[in-house]
Amino acid sequence: MFENINIHSSVAVYVQIENQVQFAVASGQLKADDKLPSAQELAKKLNVNFNTIGKSYRDLEVMGIVYTRRGMGVFIKKGAESKCKEDCRRNIVARVHEVVSEAKAAGMTAQEVKAAFNASYALDAQPYGETPDSLLALVKPKK
Amino acid sequence: MFENINIHSSVAVYVQIENQVQFAVASGQLKADDKLPSAQELAKKLNVNFNTIGKSYRDLEVMGIVYTRRGMGVFIKKGAESKCKEDCRRNIVARVHEVVSEAKAAGMTAQEVKAAFNASYALDAQPYGETPDSLLALVKPKK
Repeated sequence: MFENINIHSSVAVYVQIENQVQFAVASGQLKADDKLPSAQELAKKLNVNFNTIGKSYRDLEVMGIVYTRRGMGVFIKKGAESKCKEDCRRNIVARVHEVVSEAKAAGMTAQEVKAAFNASYALDAQPYGETPDSLLALVKPKK
Repeated sequence: MFENINIHSSVAVYVQIENQVQFAVASGQLKADDKLPSAQELAKKLNVNFNTIGKSYRDLEVMGIVYTRRGMGVFIKKGAESKCKEDCRRNIVARVHEVVSEAKAAGMTAQEVKAAFNASYALDAQPYGETPDSLLALVKPKK
Protein backbone atom coordinates (compact mmCIF):
# COMPACT_ATOMS: atom_id res chain seq x y z
CA MET A 1 0.00 0.00 0.00
CA PHE A 2 1.07 3.58 -0.73
CA GLU A 3 3.94 2.37 -2.87
CA ASN A 4 3.42 4.62 -5.86
CA ILE A 5 1.91 7.86 -6.99
CA ASN A 6 1.84 8.48 -10.72
CA ILE A 7 2.01 12.18 -11.50
CA HIS A 8 1.35 11.38 -15.18
CA SER A 9 -1.92 9.57 -14.45
CA SER A 10 -5.26 11.03 -15.47
CA VAL A 11 -6.27 10.39 -11.84
CA ALA A 12 -5.43 13.38 -9.60
CA VAL A 13 -2.79 12.67 -6.93
CA TYR A 14 -5.14 13.25 -3.98
CA VAL A 15 -7.66 10.89 -5.61
CA GLN A 16 -4.93 8.26 -6.07
CA ILE A 17 -4.33 8.39 -2.33
CA GLU A 18 -8.04 8.20 -1.54
CA ASN A 19 -8.35 5.26 -3.92
CA GLN A 20 -5.43 3.41 -2.39
CA VAL A 21 -7.02 3.65 1.06
CA GLN A 22 -10.34 2.46 -0.37
CA PHE A 23 -8.73 -0.43 -2.24
CA ALA A 24 -6.94 -1.51 0.94
CA VAL A 25 -10.18 -1.39 2.92
CA ALA A 26 -12.12 -3.19 0.18
CA SER A 27 -9.56 -6.01 0.00
CA GLY A 28 -9.32 -6.35 3.77
CA GLN A 29 -5.73 -5.10 3.97
CA LEU A 30 -6.92 -2.29 6.26
CA LYS A 31 -9.53 -3.10 8.92
CA ALA A 32 -11.74 -1.07 11.29
CA ASP A 33 -9.67 0.99 13.76
CA ASP A 34 -6.42 0.47 11.83
CA LYS A 35 -4.36 3.66 11.90
CA LEU A 36 -3.32 5.36 8.67
CA PRO A 37 0.19 6.79 8.38
CA SER A 38 0.34 10.43 9.50
CA ALA A 39 -0.02 13.00 6.72
CA GLN A 40 3.56 14.13 7.37
CA GLU A 41 4.96 10.61 7.15
CA LEU A 42 3.05 9.76 3.98
CA ALA A 43 3.89 13.08 2.31
CA LYS A 44 7.56 12.33 2.85
CA LYS A 45 7.28 8.72 1.65
CA LEU A 46 5.39 9.60 -1.55
CA ASN A 47 7.24 12.88 -2.12
CA VAL A 48 4.02 14.88 -2.42
CA ASN A 49 2.82 18.00 -0.66
CA PHE A 50 1.63 17.63 2.93
CA ASN A 51 -1.62 19.47 2.05
CA THR A 52 -2.41 16.94 -0.68
CA ILE A 53 -2.50 14.14 1.91
CA GLY A 54 -4.58 16.38 4.20
CA LYS A 55 -7.08 16.84 1.38
CA SER A 56 -7.32 13.08 0.78
CA TYR A 57 -7.80 12.32 4.47
CA ARG A 58 -10.45 15.04 4.80
CA ASP A 59 -12.32 13.65 1.79
CA LEU A 60 -12.16 10.12 3.21
CA GLU A 61 -13.63 11.44 6.45
CA VAL A 62 -16.49 13.14 4.59
CA MET A 63 -17.11 9.86 2.72
CA GLY A 64 -17.40 8.11 6.09
CA ILE A 65 -14.41 5.84 5.53
CA VAL A 66 -12.06 7.18 8.22
CA TYR A 67 -12.36 9.09 11.49
CA THR A 68 -9.91 11.42 13.18
CA ARG A 69 -8.99 11.32 16.85
CA ARG A 70 -7.39 14.64 17.61
CA GLY A 71 -3.77 14.20 18.57
CA MET A 72 -3.96 10.47 17.85
CA GLY A 73 -4.33 10.18 14.10
CA VAL A 74 -6.66 8.97 11.37
CA PHE A 75 -8.32 5.55 11.64
CA ILE A 76 -10.52 3.31 9.51
CA LYS A 77 -14.18 3.54 10.47
CA LYS A 78 -16.30 0.52 11.38
CA GLY A 79 -18.46 -0.61 8.46
CA ALA A 80 -16.19 1.01 5.89
CA GLU A 81 -15.44 -2.32 4.24
CA SER A 82 -18.77 -2.96 2.55
CA LYS A 83 -19.00 0.68 1.45
CA CYS A 84 -15.50 0.59 -0.05
CA LYS A 85 -16.09 -2.77 -1.70
CA GLU A 86 -19.17 -1.51 -3.50
CA ASP A 87 -17.72 1.90 -4.39
CA CYS A 88 -14.49 0.41 -5.70
CA ARG A 89 -16.29 -2.12 -7.85
CA ARG A 90 -18.60 0.49 -9.35
CA ASN A 91 -15.68 2.81 -10.07
CA ILE A 92 -13.58 0.08 -11.61
CA VAL A 93 -16.40 -1.11 -13.85
CA ALA A 94 -16.98 2.50 -14.93
CA ARG A 95 -13.28 2.85 -15.73
CA VAL A 96 -13.19 -0.46 -17.64
CA HIS A 97 -16.10 0.80 -19.70
CA GLU A 98 -14.35 4.12 -20.28
CA VAL A 99 -11.15 2.56 -21.53
CA VAL A 100 -13.01 0.03 -23.70
CA SER A 101 -15.01 2.85 -25.31
CA GLU A 102 -11.79 4.78 -25.89
CA ALA A 103 -10.11 1.76 -27.45
CA LYS A 104 -13.05 1.18 -29.77
CA ALA A 105 -13.14 4.84 -30.82
CA ALA A 106 -9.39 4.72 -31.52
CA GLY A 107 -9.85 1.67 -33.75
CA MET A 108 -8.15 -0.89 -31.51
CA THR A 109 -9.55 -4.40 -31.84
CA ALA A 110 -10.99 -6.39 -28.94
CA GLN A 111 -8.09 -8.80 -29.40
CA GLU A 112 -5.48 -6.10 -28.91
CA VAL A 113 -7.15 -4.76 -25.77
CA LYS A 114 -7.61 -8.28 -24.42
CA ALA A 115 -3.91 -9.00 -24.96
CA ALA A 116 -3.01 -5.88 -22.97
CA PHE A 117 -5.50 -6.83 -20.29
CA ASN A 118 -4.16 -10.38 -19.92
CA ALA A 119 -0.53 -9.27 -19.96
CA SER A 120 -1.26 -6.66 -17.31
CA TYR A 121 -3.14 -9.11 -15.11
CA ALA A 122 -0.18 -11.50 -15.21
CA LEU A 123 2.15 -8.85 -13.78
CA ASP A 124 2.59 -8.24 -10.08
CA ALA A 125 1.98 -4.48 -10.06
CA GLN A 126 0.74 -1.93 -7.53
CA PRO A 127 -1.69 0.79 -8.67
CA TYR A 128 -0.24 3.99 -10.08
CA GLY A 129 3.19 2.61 -10.92
CA GLU A 130 4.89 3.17 -14.26
CA THR A 131 3.44 1.24 -17.19
CA PRO A 132 5.84 -1.69 -17.74
CA ASP A 133 7.76 -1.69 -21.03
CA SER A 134 6.53 -5.23 -21.72
CA LEU A 135 2.99 -3.83 -22.04
CA LEU A 136 3.95 -0.84 -24.17
CA ALA A 137 5.83 -3.22 -26.47
CA LEU A 138 2.45 -4.77 -27.35
CA VAL A 139 1.46 -1.60 -29.21
CA LYS A 140 4.79 -0.65 -30.78
CA PRO A 141 4.33 -0.04 -34.51
CA LYS A 142 5.86 -2.94 -36.47
CA LYS A 143 7.98 -1.40 -39.20
CA MET B 1 -17.68 11.91 -32.59
CA PHE B 2 -18.16 14.59 -29.93
CA GLU B 3 -21.29 12.91 -28.68
CA ASN B 4 -20.52 12.95 -24.97
CA ILE B 5 -18.55 14.67 -22.29
CA ASN B 6 -18.55 13.05 -18.88
CA ILE B 7 -18.11 15.61 -16.13
CA HIS B 8 -17.79 12.78 -13.58
CA SER B 9 -14.87 11.16 -15.40
CA SER B 10 -11.37 11.18 -13.92
CA VAL B 11 -10.31 12.53 -17.33
CA ALA B 12 -10.49 16.35 -17.45
CA VAL B 13 -13.08 17.74 -19.91
CA TYR B 14 -10.51 19.47 -22.15
CA VAL B 15 -8.53 16.20 -22.27
CA GLN B 16 -11.70 14.30 -23.22
CA ILE B 17 -12.09 16.62 -26.21
CA GLU B 18 -8.42 16.25 -27.18
CA ASN B 19 -8.76 12.48 -26.88
CA GLN B 20 -11.88 12.35 -29.02
CA VAL B 21 -10.09 14.21 -31.81
CA GLN B 22 -7.11 11.88 -31.51
CA PHE B 23 -9.31 8.76 -31.50
CA ALA B 24 -11.10 9.98 -34.62
CA VAL B 25 -7.78 10.63 -36.39
CA ALA B 26 -6.34 7.28 -35.24
CA SER B 27 -9.35 5.37 -36.52
CA GLY B 28 -9.45 7.27 -39.83
CA GLN B 29 -12.75 9.00 -39.07
CA LEU B 30 -10.96 12.35 -39.44
CA LYS B 31 -8.40 12.74 -42.23
CA ALA B 32 -5.75 15.32 -43.17
CA ASP B 33 -7.28 18.75 -43.95
CA ASP B 34 -10.66 17.81 -42.46
CA LYS B 35 -12.12 20.78 -40.61
CA LEU B 36 -13.02 20.52 -36.93
CA PRO B 37 -16.23 22.13 -35.69
CA SER B 38 -15.69 25.73 -34.55
CA ALA B 39 -15.03 26.17 -30.84
CA GLN B 40 -18.30 28.08 -30.54
CA GLU B 41 -20.32 25.35 -32.26
CA LEU B 42 -18.76 22.56 -30.21
CA ALA B 43 -19.09 24.46 -26.92
CA LYS B 44 -22.80 24.80 -27.60
CA LYS B 45 -23.22 21.15 -28.63
CA LEU B 46 -21.38 19.74 -25.61
CA ASN B 47 -22.64 22.39 -23.20
CA VAL B 48 -19.15 23.27 -22.00
CA ASN B 49 -17.31 26.57 -21.77
CA PHE B 50 -16.03 28.09 -25.02
CA ASN B 51 -12.56 28.51 -23.44
CA THR B 52 -12.37 24.79 -22.66
CA ILE B 53 -12.63 23.96 -26.37
CA GLY B 54 -10.08 26.69 -27.11
CA LYS B 55 -7.68 25.06 -24.67
CA SER B 56 -8.15 21.62 -26.30
CA TYR B 57 -7.61 23.01 -29.80
CA ARG B 58 -4.50 24.92 -28.71
CA ASP B 59 -3.06 21.78 -27.11
CA LEU B 60 -3.77 19.76 -30.25
CA GLU B 61 -1.93 22.39 -32.27
CA VAL B 62 1.09 22.22 -29.94
CA MET B 63 1.02 18.40 -30.28
CA GLY B 64 1.18 18.82 -34.06
CA ILE B 65 -2.19 17.21 -34.71
CA VAL B 66 -4.12 20.22 -36.03
CA TYR B 67 -3.32 23.54 -37.68
CA THR B 68 -5.23 26.81 -37.63
CA ARG B 69 -5.98 28.95 -40.66
CA ARG B 70 -6.93 32.34 -39.33
CA GLY B 71 -10.50 33.16 -40.18
CA MET B 72 -11.01 29.70 -41.70
CA GLY B 73 -10.90 27.29 -38.77
CA VAL B 74 -8.96 24.38 -37.33
CA PHE B 75 -7.91 21.46 -39.58
CA ILE B 76 -6.25 18.07 -39.18
CA LYS B 77 -2.56 18.17 -40.06
CA LYS B 78 -0.98 15.85 -42.63
CA GLY B 79 0.80 12.93 -40.97
CA ALA B 80 -1.28 13.19 -37.79
CA GLU B 81 -2.70 9.70 -38.28
CA SER B 82 0.37 7.64 -37.44
CA LYS B 83 1.19 9.91 -34.49
CA CYS B 84 -2.35 9.62 -33.11
CA LYS B 85 -2.44 5.87 -33.67
CA GLU B 86 0.72 5.34 -31.65
CA ASP B 87 -0.15 7.83 -28.91
CA CYS B 88 -3.68 6.47 -28.48
CA ARG B 89 -2.48 2.90 -28.23
CA ARG B 90 0.17 3.74 -25.66
CA ASN B 91 -2.32 5.72 -23.59
CA ILE B 92 -4.94 3.01 -23.74
CA VAL B 93 -2.51 0.29 -22.72
CA ALA B 94 -1.35 2.49 -19.83
CA ARG B 95 -4.98 2.97 -18.76
CA VAL B 96 -5.75 -0.74 -19.05
CA HIS B 97 -2.79 -1.41 -16.80
CA GLU B 98 -3.95 1.25 -14.36
CA VAL B 99 -7.44 -0.14 -14.03
CA VAL B 100 -6.18 -3.74 -13.78
CA SER B 101 -3.81 -2.73 -10.95
CA GLU B 102 -6.66 -0.92 -9.23
CA ALA B 103 -8.94 -3.94 -9.55
CA LYS B 104 -6.28 -6.25 -8.12
CA ALA B 105 -5.61 -3.89 -5.20
CA ALA B 106 -9.35 -3.72 -4.50
CA GLY B 107 -9.56 -7.52 -4.40
CA MET B 108 -11.55 -8.02 -7.61
CA THR B 109 -10.83 -11.29 -9.38
CA ALA B 110 -9.59 -11.52 -12.97
CA GLN B 111 -12.90 -13.20 -13.79
CA GLU B 112 -14.96 -10.28 -12.51
CA VAL B 113 -12.92 -7.74 -14.44
CA LYS B 114 -13.02 -9.89 -17.57
CA ALA B 115 -16.79 -10.13 -17.33
CA ALA B 116 -17.03 -6.32 -17.15
CA PHE B 117 -14.61 -6.02 -20.03
CA ASN B 118 -16.53 -8.44 -22.27
CA ALA B 119 -19.90 -6.92 -21.40
CA SER B 120 -18.57 -3.45 -22.15
CA TYR B 121 -17.05 -4.52 -25.45
CA ALA B 122 -20.37 -5.99 -26.55
CA LEU B 123 -22.11 -2.63 -26.11
CA ASP B 124 -22.22 0.04 -28.79
CA ALA B 125 -20.96 2.97 -26.73
CA GLN B 126 -19.15 6.23 -27.44
CA PRO B 127 -16.34 7.36 -25.11
CA TYR B 128 -17.27 9.41 -22.05
CA GLY B 129 -20.92 8.43 -21.95
CA GLU B 130 -22.68 7.30 -18.78
CA THR B 131 -21.77 3.83 -17.55
CA PRO B 132 -24.68 1.59 -18.61
CA ASP B 133 -26.73 0.06 -15.79
CA SER B 134 -26.20 -3.40 -17.29
CA LEU B 135 -22.50 -3.07 -16.42
CA LEU B 136 -23.03 -1.69 -12.94
CA ALA B 137 -25.42 -4.58 -12.28
CA LEU B 138 -22.41 -6.92 -12.61
CA VAL B 139 -20.98 -5.59 -9.37
CA LYS B 140 -24.16 -5.15 -7.34
CA PRO B 141 -23.79 -6.82 -3.95
CA LYS B 142 -25.85 -10.03 -3.85
CA LYS B 143 -27.79 -10.02 -0.61
